[in-house]
Amino acid sequence: TGLPFDEQQPAAIRLYPLSNYTFGVKETQPEEDPSVKDRLRRLEEHYEQYGMRRTCEGILVCHEHNHPHVLMLQIANAFFKLPGDYLSHDADEISGFKKILTAKLSPPSSSSLSSRDSLESADWNISHNLSTWWRPNFETFMYPYLPPHTTRPKEQKKLYFIQLPETKVLSVPKNMKLLAVPLFELYDNSQRYGPQLSAIPHYLSRFRWEFV
Amino acid sequence: TGLPFDEQQPAAIRLYPLSNYTFGVKETQPEEDPSVKDRLRRLEEHYEQYGMRRTCEGILVCHEHNHPHVLMLQIANAFFKLPGDYLSHDADEISGFKKILTAKLSPPSSSSLSSRDSLESADWNISHNLSTWWRPNFETFMYPYLPPHTTRPKEQKKLYFIQLPETKVLSVPKNMKLLAVPLFELYDNSQRYGPQLSAIPHYLSRFRWEFV
Ligand SMILES: [Zn+2]
Ligand SMILES: [Zn+2]
Ligand SMILES: [Zn+2]
Ligand SMILES: [Zn+2]
Repeated sequence: TGLPFDEQQPAAIRLYPLSNYTFGVKETQPEEDPSVKDRLRRLEEHYEQYGMRRTCEGILVCHEHNHPHVLMLQIANAFFKLPGDYLSHDADEISGFKKILTAKLSPPSSSSLSSRDSLESADWNISHNLSTWWRPNFETFMYPYLPPHTTRPKEQKKLYFIQLPETKVLSVPKNMKLLAVPLFELYDNSQRYGPQLSAIPHYLSRFRWEFV
Repeated sequence: TGLPFDEQQPAAIRLYPLSNYTFGVKETQPEEDPSVKDRLRRLEEHYEQYGMRRTCEGILVCHEHNHPHVLMLQIANAFFKLPGDYLSHDADEISGFKKILTAKLSPPSSSSLSSRDSLESADWNISHNLSTWWRPNFETFMYPYLPPHTTRPKEQKKLYFIQLPETKVLSVPKNMKLLAVPLFELYDNSQRYGPQLSAIPHYLSRFRWEFV
């Protein structure tokens, strides 16, 4: 019963179960900036020297019981963060972002876990650009659009869908936890996850999934 | 100053000023269902006869002072709605949706306004699928994902980006108003616009705009 309803949608994206992925632990990665004030001051320095800061974050999706779950870092049992960071001023967008993801989530090349990944599954498949956020001023507020009359934005943050391979080894710094958060937990929950992470269900809502 | 930051983004979308569009008035179009209860009962009847209801809504975007504005219908000075409706059970998705948009927003073919549009600008350019919402039960709640363990959703609603041509004649039923609502007004404003309309800035955030 029922006619098709699948026009102008990208091909279904294959999601693998969380249990396909291997999780290890690696050295602590302290936060670069001890306070928001420090972070904004460093942003200002970057802006003066190099112009607008470019930040990339990854949305890595797997499934549990056929519902999409997003991999998120939790720091100090408090903040949730997507894996990502700002690009160095002289970095190319995609290769620079891959280096960041490797630093955040790949096992150190010296570790025994590292040898479990094939070259292909150790790589990062930077797929759809899901959203772009803008920071108009040297302030904490960001917006999913360029606010009117903003001619010199201070930071642009791009959220990318990262297509996970069938298996992969991920290694998480000791001071963080990696959690698989279901879409229904993120949705309408900006109080807990903030405006960017709680919007992830919106960013993913145009995709169809194939759960394997 | 600054390296490119434009990977994996679709080409910029051209937006024209609101003043490029001509607005007329046409006959009142009463709401089909006088109450939410009636609407849900009719949905149930549809589901029993034909299966899941398919609904399409259009996001039509223009600009004012270089900030995107979304065209929305306001009914009885209260509710805001995107132009759209559910498809007839035997309608093809795209041609059925075009008919709905014409019924909602085009001048009657008998009117003098109608002759002002070329064939091309009178047509509807159904572009990107921006989001899909699901109604798991015969209830008012919808979600931008299929909730876990929902095997028989009752309605699926697709939001489409409608690429507006440089000029176009739009005709609005007497009992409604057509408003151009800026993204900054919709953002984080589900109290006024509801969960679907207030998420539009998220759906559009991956696009770059060319304001002409
Ligand atoms: Zn779960
Ligand atoms: Zn379950
Ligand atoms: Zn305005
Ligand atoms: Zn202005």
